[in-house]
Amino acid sequence: MELNKTRCVLDAQHLPKTWYEIRADLPAPAPGLLHPGTLKPLGVEELSQVFSPSLAQQELATEREVEIPEPVRQLYALWRPTPLVRARRLEAALDTPARMYFKAESLSPTGSHKTNSGLAQAFYAKQDGIKRITTETGGGQWGTSLAYGGAQFGVEVDIFMVRVSYRQKPYRRGQMEMYGARCVPSPSETTEAGRAILLQNPHHPGSLGCAVSEALEVAAKDNKARYCLGSVLNHVILHQSIMGQEALVQMEMMDDYPDIVVGCAGGGSNFSGIAFPFLGKALREKKATRFVAVEPVACPSLTRGAYAYDFGDVAGMTPLLKMHTLGSTFTPPSFHAGGLRYHGMAPLLSHVYALGLVEAVAVPQIPCLEAGLLFARTEGIVPAPESCHAIRTAMDEALICKQEGKAKTILFNLSGHGHFDMQVYMDFLEGKLQDEALDEIHLKEAMGKLPTGG
Amino acid sequence: MELNKTRCVLDAQHLPKTWYEIRADLPAPAPGLLHPGTLKPLGVEELSQVFSPSLAQQELATEREVEIPEPVRQLYALWRPTPLVRARRLEAALDTPARMYFKAESLSPTGSHKTNSGLAQAFYAKQDGIKRITTETGGGQWGTSLAYGGAQFGVEVDIFMVRVSYRQKPYRRGQMEMYGARCVPSPSETTEAGRAILLQNPHHPGSLGCAVSEALEVAAKDNKARYCLGSVLNHVILHQSIMGQEALVQMEMMDDYPDIVVGCAGGGSNFSGIAFPFLGKALREKKATRFVAVEPVACPSLTRGAYAYDFGDVAGMTPLLKMHTLGSTFTPPSFHAGGLRYHGMAPLLSHVYALGLVEAVAVPQIPCLEAGLLFARTEGIVPAPESCHAIRTAMDEALICKQEGKAKTILFNLSGHGHFDMQVYMDFLEGKLQDEALDEIHLKEAMGKLPTGG
Repeated sequence: MELNKTRCVLDAQHLPKTWYEIRADLPAPAPGLLHPGTLKPLGVEELSQVFSPSLAQQELATEREVEIPEPVRQLYALWRPTPLVRARRLEAALDTPARMYFKAESLSPTGSHKTNSGLAQAFYAKQDGIKRITTETGGGQWGTSLAYGGAQFGVEVDIFMVRVSYRQKPYRRGQMEMYGARCVPSPSETTEAGRAILLQNPHHPGSLGCAVSEALEVAAKDNKARYCLGSVLNHVILHQSIMGQEALVQMEMMDDYPDIVVGCAGGGSNFSGIAFPFLGKALREKKATRFVAVEPVACPSLTRGAYAYDFGDVAGMTPLLKMHTLGSTFTPPSFHAGGLRYHGMAPLLSHVYALGLVEAVAVPQIPCLEAGLLFARTEGIVPAPESCHAIRTAMDEALICKQEGKAKTILFNLSGHGHFDMQVYMDFLEGKLQDEALDEIHLKEAMGKLPTGG
Repeated sequence: MELNKTRCVLDAQHLPKTWYEIRADLPAPAPGLLHPGTLKPLGVEELSQVFSPSLAQQELATEREVEIPEPVRQLYALWRPTPLVRARRLEAALDTPARMYFKAESLSPTGSHKTNSGLAQAFYAKQDGIKRITTETGGGQWGTSLAYGGAQFGVEVDIFMVRVSYRQKPYRRGQMEMYGARCVPSPSETTEAGRAILLQNPHHPGSLGCAVSEALEVAAKDNKARYCLGSVLNHVILHQSIMGQEALVQMEMMDDYPDIVVGCAGGGSNFSGIAFPFLGKALREKKATRFVAVEPVACPSLTRGAYAYDFGDVAGMTPLLKMHTLGSTFTPPSFHAGGLRYHGMAPLLSHVYALGLVEAVAVPQIPCLEAGLLFARTEGIVPAPESCHAIRTAMDEALICKQEGKAKTILFNLSGHGHFDMQVYMDFLEGKLQDEALDEIHLKEAMGKLPTGG
């Protein structure tokens, strides 16, 4: 085993100066956000009612490169560039000729890639004079990241955490509170949207769509507040592009280049963040790279959803987004990858998927946790259940390489660590878990309620 | 704030090739291990009955440089060299002219510096034909690290975890089991030592000294097994020297050099690991560097213990070690830094402390957790309660710099993350915790039972 070319670390001098915007390189423009009443495209001014004006601008801008503000870069320098690691021990365990690399986003201060956008969004809020930001969180990675951003830039943070995750992962709430944020379980009694849901079902487990409604409502009622979203939107994908940009440089330093790029996809920002800089290069230079987005079988928006205009939240308070969606009223069962329980998919990722530029696959949780366990035993790091989806598919691709005797290069994103998900692994080791299933009846019902035909 | 010189990262090419042995540079030889019956110094052969022969040899060898085996270096390369980070945000929050640096051992796969020795000890066991290794663990960092080592080198691992920590930190057990190790709470019914303790007190919270006895007993009864210790002994301190060796290079790359080196001290390997390479340089080059070991007030072996020959465990099964000790029957109350609950201190650290080469200070837990909270809000990383002791003292030194208007350089070791200690922080934020106290009566009783006059 070579000591060299096992782990590519770069110092702060190599930190990218700009984020990368894929829209500059796409063969067809991505559909925009629509006003749900007029069905007309939304402009910066209207979006600025909901989001910080700087983020509203980023949402619509399509320049290839966007300068990363210096205070954000300085914070990125606390842990970025993250290492790119050759998973030699995992390769050996699989006995595959494939070369497997992962980007270790698990090493961020809050434990996932979400920090990349959390810091940026808190910075822009502060710059725009916003005093308070509200958001939703599923597994807690995003809430923690925005809480850390708020602590850094002096902005108040209110977080609605999906109730089932709030119960499963109390220590994620603890981390948000350490950073000084407030965190309440959603649906909650504190908002109209929450109360309406609880009236129908007092034991509602919550969903990201529901938590989004609550966070939006609170922001809408306070003119010093704005709403932040941890995935889905163009500006979040923009911030996450730093992962792929770094990986481009690091793959080059490893004298290698991925044949396949793999990431898990909940709202889409993690997958897009690692993949889009490579996709842009593939488009510009006509490279034959495969991109595989991995979603859970119980919430398969890309592989089973309609490509249609839909709301981003359950209460219908967001603009209409053209995306692969299971219907905004779809609530997936409470499987363990809390960050993958969103009914829709980022419009930008949906668009490139519809263009045939990326592939998607849906996998059940047991094979993912098996993959996560093997990863921990070989590479040491306990991966987040979300990240296990990427590991699973990367392993499956490596096993195909083994069958075919092909030495392909596979890059996957280790989006976060699983230190707050240990109960999942313990239940798994004790044989208490089973594969989750897609609720077909509920899906049909939710799809029937789509607001437009797309 | 400068982007440059905030974080020094080095690639695997900079990984030290040797560990550093302080005994080569000391002005007086350190006392050896004694047989408790004959009171004669123990040789390699006798120690090899307890430890892997290679480790027994390292325990007694005093060459300045010991080659790191290539398989261990290859594993180190997964996360080492760890970054050296300038804590600029912490400095700003304290408004201090001091320059504060920390070594981010929290980024190891198992979450602490313990991995440095866990991998080495598992490697030597395998090399020496040992099939099974047994050990104790307090907070769980050491057990996790040896479990990971066992998974890497194919050695069975049995861990006795201090009962109070086993209850407080179930997910540490989960992580050990993920790596394939067995973990039982100590005192347990599985050993004579455990049963004897439970007979006296069925609700005994456990202690490191008690868990050591159990692990020793199991190893002694299986001739294919050996015992491993996570701190205290010379060979553990040797393995941990890699932290200070890297930091020496990194401080130079930062164009700076520490006036003060700070680390928390439970068994002593963490403090010694960061400090001894700097202490050796100070001795060789007559540099005026201060070294401060930080211990908890409830278990203050350096600041309140006798410097005497004592057992390393409660049942009196270990060799006699000359060390600062509170008495091997001393069981500290169950405060939250589980890794700092050992009755004795590494003989080598005790020796340099007795020589006046290092200082020691004892601090209570509330100011430590306050320091940990400020560290998390500024630098992002949630520190382990053990590491909070080092942060507290580094902060106190930085505040003295502020009072005196002096811009000293302070280096402290961030020995681990606190992701498995979130309940402590949540209890702290809710005002449920208070400072722990030293049990003076129990201390007097335990000190009265010291086996020799020292």
